[in-house]
Amino acid sequence: MGSYPNSVQQLIDRFSRFPGIGKKTAQRMAFYVMKYDGPEAAELAESIINVKTKIRFCAICGGITENDPCTICTDPKRNKEMICVVEDPQDIFIFERSSSYRGVYHVLGGILSPLDGIGPDDLNLNKLIDRVKENTEVILATNPSVEGDTTALYINKLFSKKNIKITRLARGIPVGSAIEYTDEATLTRALEGRTCL
Amino acid sequence: MGSYPNSVQQLIDRFSRFPGIGKKTAQRMAFYVMKYDGPEAAELAESIINVKTKIRFCAICGGITENDPCTICTDPKRNKEMICVVEDPQDIFIFERSSSYRGVYHVLGGILSPLDGIGPDDLNLNKLIDRVKENTEVILATNPSVEGDTTALYINKLFSKKNIKITRLARGIPVGSAIEYTDEATLTRALEGRTCL
Repeated sequence: MGSYPNSVQQLIDRFSRFPGIGKKTAQRMAFYVMKYDGPEAAELAESIINVKTKIRFCAICGGITENDPCTICTDPKRNKEMICVVEDPQDIFIFERSSSYRGVYHVLGGILSPLDGIGPDDLNLNKLIDRVKENTEVILATNPSVEGDTTALYINKLFSKKNIKITRLARGIPVGSAIEYTDEATLTRALEGRTCL
Repeated sequence: MGSYPNSVQQLIDRFSRFPGIGKKTAQRMAFYVMKYDGPEAAELAESIINVKTKIRFCAICGGITENDPCTICTDPKRNKEMICVVEDPQDIFIFERSSSYRGVYHVLGGILSPLDGIGPDDLNLNKLIDRVKENTEVILATNPSVEGDTTALYINKLFSKKNIKITRLARGIPVGSAIEYTDEATLTRALEGRTCL
């Protein structure tokens, strides 16, 4: 005894496979589904199926989209000579929300991580090489982690023989933070990357 | 720009309606759904529908079950003269997991809360009155909150004229906790309820 009915246990198991969802949250979610009065359960199920059937990867940048190529790649106002290289499709939306970038994107679909068995062949690099022309600026926006840095260095090396501009996002103290709470590595980078007023 | 494709936004909105799921977690969940390779999305959708179609409330205790009446109410080994009154169906599983209770349950389906407009008529009380016979022990296991206490007092009053035993769960210091971190109200209850060794 003490176990949930089969259908409930199955739903809890499936919810708890999501990243960041523990067993307790999955239980609460499953009970929430049971409490739905109207068509919410059917709607939620439909949304899940919808996302799987409607969403595809943009053939140009690898971002997610309902129409291939995506609205960013087909936007004539976007600067096609500036390519921001990100790890995952969701990173694109973070940049877009800041409204400060008018170039295009390229999704690697991962990051070099020998420990996880992810090598250059597992990343969307060939298409990037095809897209990069003379005068293109490649902005490496991989995460500021060891793997992110390694991947950035690898891509930098890939293009070392070509005459293109390769940049990396600045590292420093986040806006709204305090020097008091800044770790040593970040402070070192902030000093190194100091700018003139 | 900067907004997700429609189907993605819809799924994020639906995930973020779950209790304890914020916008960020909902986004991460939606992207996780997009990354499914195999039949997981269809299976998750099916599980949600399954729970809604298969799960019903036990006609006796009000707990959730796939077969009505539930396995606890139909178990001949269970003591039908001991009824543990809980707020929500999920509370039953917490008791069952402790394996320390061999009586049956009764789900109120809520708690008296005048501020939320929940009165005695909104609770599953009539069925409880029908179930309580002479010699029944009613264990009031509502939460140790103001509303839980009020509901317990109300039910106690309901049966005051009948000659039945009504008990309430003990309050005190949780096992594994420390006196240092115990709040005043709990410590007062722990002192009041002290037991002989």
